[in-house]
Amino acid sequence: MPQPTAAPTLAGRMCMQSGQVVFAGSGPGDPDLLTLKALAALQQAEVILFDRLVSPEILELAGPQAILENVGKEGFGAQVSQQHICNRLITHAQAGKRVLRLKSGDATLFGRLDEELSACDAAGVRYQIVPGITAASAAVAGIGQSLTQRGRNSSVRYLTGHDTQGFADHDWQALARPGEVAAIYMGKKSARFVQGRLLMHGANPATAVTVVENASRTNQRVLETTLGQLPADLAEARFDGPALTFLGLAPRASLTALPDLPVQTDLKMELA
Amino acid sequence: MPQPTAAPTLAGRMCMQSGQVVFAGSGPGDPDLLTLKALAALQQAEVILFDRLVSPEILELAGPQAILENVGKEGFGAQVSQQHICNRLITHAQAGKRVLRLKSGDATLFGRLDEELSACDAAGVRYQIVPGITAASAAVAGIGQSLTQRGRNSSVRYLTGHDTQGFADHDWQALARPGEVAAIYMGKKSARFVQGRLLMHGANPATAVTVVENASRTNQRVLETTLGQLPADLAEARFDGPALTFLGLAPRASLTALPDLPVQTDLKMELA
Repeated sequence: MPQPTAAPTLAGRMCMQSGQVVFAGSGPGDPDLLTLKALAALQQAEVILFDRLVSPEILELAGPQAILENVGKEGFGAQVSQQHICNRLITHAQAGKRVLRLKSGDATLFGRLDEELSACDAAGVRYQIVPGITAASAAVAGIGQSLTQRGRNSSVRYLTGHDTQGFADHDWQALARPGEVAAIYMGKKSARFVQGRLLMHGANPATAVTVVENASRTNQRVLETTLGQLPADLAEARFDGPALTFLGLAPRASLTALPDLPVQTDLKMELA
Repeated sequence: MPQPTAAPTLAGRMCMQSGQVVFAGSGPGDPDLLTLKALAALQQAEVILFDRLVSPEILELAGPQAILENVGKEGFGAQVSQQHICNRLITHAQAGKRVLRLKSGDATLFGRLDEELSACDAAGVRYQIVPGITAASAAVAGIGQSLTQRGRNSSVRYLTGHDTQGFADHDWQALARPGEVAAIYMGKKSARFVQGRLLMHGANPATAVTVVENASRTNQRVLETTLGQLPADLAEARFDGPALTFLGLAPRASLTALPDLPVQTDLKMELA
């Protein structure tokens, strides 16, 4: 099997500078979904501040010179505050290090990127941002669907199940309409809340809902359910990895006929 | 400067099979934003069917055995129908080729992926889907912003400016609300239509709007404007590359103070 070899021209525009911070998305977990630019940053960085959901396989690609700091909010416990992360970024950058801030998925989506950019701005620290593959893209590929489809939906919404104030409020009336497609991040704990709000606004309980756990990873699991059954099926599935919930999308019907598609569709059957 | 070298374990799960189609997103244009998996597919494919917006720098990474077919809708003229693309995919796959269907951006967003997947299903052709970096992610990184922000917006909408029926209709009332953030694909021609609909539904003409042309490419340009000024400023800018329009986002204020950020902010000044 041919192996990819990065040509010398690749990542040509990624040359980390001393005292600079690169904010990069690591993608959803599969190291093969890293961009060439993020890989270059991993290999060049002297300090890497990483989140809890960045997979170990990705951290193994760091250069030998790199010092790795886990600033994952759950990994270290609740005491790793956003302020602490900002302070660490600034301290390392001002010490002249090449700093990589590695966030899972795409740093620009639900990544609290702004707070860290503002801290850099305030301290006069230079930075650049490298986009990554967001979980929704990997998850939808895993169920053989696309996020938009001619004649079905010409828009898609990405939203979060909870925010700093608790469960996040959204335009439930619009989301409850037939044909709406949404990717809900961090939607496990808020599943019953989201279901309640949508049904209250007239959503059809038979609306397709799919939950993809560990999208793109070797332990990816797929739960095919409906809005009406979501909380019960989710409780039974006992997902403990990061999960992406699709409202208005079911896995492609042909999936079970295509055994080499990287998706597990037997979960619902196990549960049923 | 260290060069990235793809470790032997990388793209380990990408091994294209004879008679299989890999649908992959090429990202927004910068070859360094390819995923390792897409690069592996480029190197392994025997036939590559590519869209008009896939950049030449990316096509240069194809293996020497690859036959490249341009199926771009504008590249070949209007006669390259979706049906023709589907036929070519099936013909090559049934001839036992390793086929790569390369779409710009992320194949699962506004990529008409479903029609091609259905054609494969109908013909019994096996496939897999490799997600890519979508233009919105690269564009927002280019203006130093993020698509969501705590306390500002906990959801973001991706929509298209026009569909097969002409200008696409959307939930303008919801989009017109203060604080809404949306990424509008293919929004150049529909700028006046979108502006009209939003203003009709009460949007503030001072709402920030940013248009990023050729996101991530060396010829990236940024137009900072407002909803009220959008059509006039866009006409004056004469963008001829692919453009992504952000509703509710302005470039980060500090950008001009950070000359190494890959963004051009002098365009508006040129225009003013």
